[in-house]
Amino acid sequence: MHNLVERLFPICRSITGDGVRETLRILQDIIPLEVHEVPTGTAAFDWTIPKEWNVRDAYIKNSRGRKVIDFGVSNLHLVSYSVPVQKRLSLAELSKHLHTDPDHPDWVPYRTSYYNETWGFCLSHNQFQELEEDEYEIHIDADLQDGSLTYGELVVPGNEAEEVLLFAHTCHPSLCNDNLSGIALVTHLAQILSEIELRYTYRFVFAPATIGSITWLSRNEEALGRIRHGLVASVLGDPGGFHYKRTYDGDADIDRAVVQSLRDLGVPFEVREFEPWGYDERQFNSPGLRLPVGRLTRSPNGEFAEYHTSADNLEFVKAECLGQSLHAYLAIVNTLEANRVYKNLSPNGEPQLGRRGLYRKLGGLQSVEATQLAMLWVLNGSDGHNSLLDIAERAKMPFSQVQTAASLLESNHLLALVEPDVAE
Amino acid sequence: MHNLVERLFPICRSITGDGVRETLRILQDIIPLEVHEVPTGTAAFDWTIPKEWNVRDAYIKNSRGRKVIDFGVSNLHLVSYSVPVQKRLSLAELSKHLHTDPDHPDWVPYRTSYYNETWGFCLSHNQFQELEEDEYEIHIDADLQDGSLTYGELVVPGNEAEEVLLFAHTCHPSLCNDNLSGIALVTHLAQILSEIELRYTYRFVFAPATIGSITWLSRNEEALGRIRHGLVASVLGDPGGFHYKRTYDGDADIDRAVVQSLRDLGVPFEVREFEPWGYDERQFNSPGLRLPVGRLTRSPNGEFAEYHTSADNLEFVKAECLGQSLHAYLAIVNTLEANRVYKNLSPNGEPQLGRRGLYRKLGGLQSVEATQLAMLWVLNGSDGHNSLLDIAERAKMPFSQVQTAASLLESNHLLALVEPDVAE
Amino acid sequence: MHNLVERLFPICRSITGDGVRETLRILQDIIPLEVHEVPTGTAAFDWTIPKEWNVRDAYIKNSRGRKVIDFGVSNLHLVSYSVPVQKRLSLAELSKHLHTDPDHPDWVPYRTSYYNETWGFCLSHNQFQELEEDEYEIHIDADLQDGSLTYGELVVPGNEAEEVLLFAHTCHPSLCNDNLSGIALVTHLAQILSEIELRYTYRFVFAPATIGSITWLSRNEEALGRIRHGLVASVLGDPGGFHYKRTYDGDADIDRAVVQSLRDLGVPFEVREFEPWGYDERQFNSPGLRLPVGRLTRSPNGEFAEYHTSADNLEFVKAECLGQSLHAYLAIVNTLEANRVYKNLSPNGEPQLGRRGLYRKLGGLQSVEATQLAMLWVLNGSDGHNSLLDIAERAKMPFSQVQTAASLLESNHLLALVEPDVAE
Repeated sequence: MHNLVERLFPICRSITGDGVRETLRILQDIIPLEVHEVPTGTAAFDWTIPKEWNVRDAYIKNSRGRKVIDFGVSNLHLVSYSVPVQKRLSLAELSKHLHTDPDHPDWVPYRTSYYNETWGFCLSHNQFQELEEDEYEIHIDADLQDGSLTYGELVVPGNEAEEVLLFAHTCHPSLCNDNLSGIALVTHLAQILSEIELRYTYRFVFAPATIGSITWLSRNEEALGRIRHGLVASVLGDPGGFHYKRTYDGDADIDRAVVQSLRDLGVPFEVREFEPWGYDERQFNSPGLRLPVGRLTRSPNGEFAEYHTSADNLEFVKAECLGQSLHAYLAIVNTLEANRVYKNLSPNGEPQLGRRGLYRKLGGLQSVEATQLAMLWVLNGSDGHNSLLDIAERAKMPFSQVQTAASLLESNHLLALVEPDVAE
Repeated sequence: MHNLVERLFPICRSITGDGVRETLRILQDIIPLEVHEVPTGTAAFDWTIPKEWNVRDAYIKNSRGRKVIDFGVSNLHLVSYSVPVQKRLSLAELSKHLHTDPDHPDWVPYRTSYYNETWGFCLSHNQFQELEEDEYEIHIDADLQDGSLTYGELVVPGNEAEEVLLFAHTCHPSLCNDNLSGIALVTHLAQILSEIELRYTYRFVFAPATIGSITWLSRNEEALGRIRHGLVASVLGDPGGFHYKRTYDGDADIDRAVVQSLRDLGVPFEVREFEPWGYDERQFNSPGLRLPVGRLTRSPNGEFAEYHTSADNLEFVKAECLGQSLHAYLAIVNTLEANRVYKNLSPNGEPQLGRRGLYRKLGGLQSVEATQLAMLWVLNGSDGHNSLLDIAERAKMPFSQVQTAASLLESNHLLALVEPDVAE
Repeated sequence: MHNLVERLFPICRSITGDGVRETLRILQDIIPLEVHEVPTGTAAFDWTIPKEWNVRDAYIKNSRGRKVIDFGVSNLHLVSYSVPVQKRLSLAELSKHLHTDPDHPDWVPYRTSYYNETWGFCLSHNQFQELEEDEYEIHIDADLQDGSLTYGELVVPGNEAEEVLLFAHTCHPSLCNDNLSGIALVTHLAQILSEIELRYTYRFVFAPATIGSITWLSRNEEALGRIRHGLVASVLGDPGGFHYKRTYDGDADIDRAVVQSLRDLGVPFEVREFEPWGYDERQFNSPGLRLPVGRLTRSPNGEFAEYHTSADNLEFVKAECLGQSLHAYLAIVNTLEANRVYKNLSPNGEPQLGRRGLYRKLGGLQSVEATQLAMLWVLNGSDGHNSLLDIAERAKMPFSQVQTAASLLESNHLLALVEPDVAE
């Protein structure tokens, strides 16, 4: 995953443009992503697809002809969606278009102006303070014109039509944790899931934040009813602890599956209530949709110093953190896949496990082994209403133990799967 | 309000009699109160209107003719509803009819004997200890005969027929915090609300405790179904923190509106669960009625030393405390008035606030301003079921921010009011 | 009760056999227990009644003819359900059949092998370490053949057909706390309840653990619907604090009645959530039955050092602890019996208690007495839905106070009992 992050890092992405296309083409080397283009002017719920933005070059030269700020050095230097400019300005005039972060004087901040036609440059505060009174040449060679918004989608079919949605936003330029870590993780998760038999159908969407998820939602309204669980993935490469942000309802299966899975993994994590601020979970949980889509990041957006600055770079994102994050996503997928509702076929009293070789032979001991206790929990809980997750939560047991016990009992004809529409 | 308290202080009130009439006449100088007279013997649910009590004079003279206790000095000296007496008694005999508070030897306690025909005097414990062996002349010139119970009522109409009930008891003689502070606050609240446009209809009732609220309830059964929210007001002039006592159900809108409003004001307050002991909230929350009527006091009844003693006087009640209490009641009224259910008219994804000038223009910043976050909360919550109070509670935001955001969104045609019968 | 424990102590009980029969015969000296025999091979839900086991003698002799382990000294020395054996073995061979508890080297552990035909001896770890290399004679003179499983049952009829179930397991040999304390307590409870007028019908079942409760359940399926409350009783003679284990639902009336009663008694207690491990509550709470049967012990099974060892003897169980436990069970029975739903007959406002002599005569005091407050709570709560237990919980009052208040109000025609099918 870190290699993929490195490959994608130099590309100048925004909510539209060739940077997104190139990014998706690179992902196609790994997974068979379908790329969609939605023309400028297309309506998407309350929004309209904006003009497409592409930039060839941008710099600020001083009067001696030296480039004091150069898009070629870092695409963060240019405010995203800056209009084409060719003019000369005094430092005072220019300063109105410059953005710095005085709290971190070495770092270049990341700024955008998608829906307000203007221009600007970002630079480190140190760079800013070195600028002298002078006449500067501003050069932005960019196109802002009709084109399209680009997103990628991959459906990995499972045995059931019901879907799990994984979403990564793709609109950030040279920023690693937000959002390349998410793109890399979702890509590799998709690759892994493509190779195994699945219960659910998995839908992977790579699209720009906000306008991208809204566009995708508006074009897939008939499919939304099939989304049973979902996660928004980003900020997954830093060494911070996991942060899970619940769905609007707060107790969807995905909310509980994430908590159970992270607890079982023994990794540090914190659970946050839903709020309508953050990433694309805002759109999925909007009042007209209320999709059960949570968000799993490591550090939350806006809560680490490197967020939206040049310090969110290839060094900030660690391969082992990406690996641990992928591990967590896989554990959650396993929990969702295995979270079935069973019915105890011998529900009156306990069945005689000993006769089936499922119980220890010697009686009178002080305690019972975890495996046997897990079987007793699954038998007791499986009244046709409780899922394995319900049982694991109540038993305060790792999901895998409950899952193993259920398998053992099912193969001994002591449990039967309850059909989904019966279980509800 | 403190002036009104001073004016009402000398009057000898009880559950019936001219003191109550005079009190209500004084209130009529401020608000157009309607005064009701209910004759002795009238049934009121399980109760019967008692005889009316009026007292002209009462004293205890020693054998030298000196008045050792004199109703003319303080009406607290006479046990309320004492029967007429003219007799001579030894100190031993007299003592059976004397009440003191040894814990506060300077203070005269307040005692009543409404439904048990007897007589008695209250005096400070110091006074009591100065009484010598002697033959005392007991003189109580009082009437206890058929008459009526008097209460006052004012309805301030709003745009809706649904009502907010404010109740103050009126049966205490020269006691300031309990109950003159409540009378003064409700009177001024009524005056203020008479001058503004209101959503709800407000009903203000001034009546003696217990028998008064029961009488009013029994005579207004057809109106009770319109009571949507209510508060019992008393003990609102001392410097203690606020105490809110919940309704029987405990999660009525009034319970939540009071908590939200007091929290937003930043004043110290404590919430108590309902118990069938206290003031007239006992009657409003009785099992046959279960009206959503809470109680907001400063110190709770019985929990401050001055309660029901001569120390609950004009000095104990502070003008600034009365003012702060009125401020709190007005904040609660505002919350009730503004607590609407809206429907987001652009419920799929977030609407594009920027297009309407409702969103900042520059993107990429670490956090979002409170006003913008409030708009996002209102948009996300307004699914046709949540009220603004629901949203403020979940967002942990001041109600006023949520209210402002809703106004802004409504005027931008992004929200529509849900008709009450649709919202339920 | 301690005398009964002493009388039952020497008997060798198991899940079947003459030891159980003799035990039940002794109980018949105290209560008119009906004894049931269920033949070997009979189906009981998923189980089958096993062969009956009886043992006449068992020992291990060394080569000099000395009995180094002797069933005659303690029946714990023989693994329960050991098959007949007559053979000579080296120490190494023999050791495979020996069980010790190295953590408590003086104590003989208790072991069983009901459903796996084998044999074994239990001995203290000290005894074990004294065994020398030798050829040992193993002698087990036991029968394991067709017979029957024996259980005892007593129904004490009440005014209602609905039942309270009390269950004690009877399968442990010379172990006092587990299970003789439970047998003795349930026997004496039955004796006491036989002599008083009861609301509920009480059913007392004495049966072996697991197979016994399952057998009883399978033979009484039509009666199970009448079980309204139940308790499994064991481990009631040690000085540990009480431990109540909730039913599967966790908020059945029995769960709440036990907590209220123990709290009112002021004894130390701890409440545990249901888990499918422990005693016969596992069977009563199985998914096909879900009977409201909790478990009240002192120390929980497996959580005291003496559990299932020779140290669980006549000294470990104290007469005063048994007495306190019986007291607790009687308090719970009283709570269940008296836990009625009433309807306030004067539900609008408070009724005038003073007119009926139920209220103090002097008004104005700071507080109200507990008895009067209890009456106000019962009147306020009795809306036809709340039981006295609901009211006691909400009022945070002892149940007896609420019960007394209800009696007083009922005899004053202020309360009427709600018929059970109306109350639901």
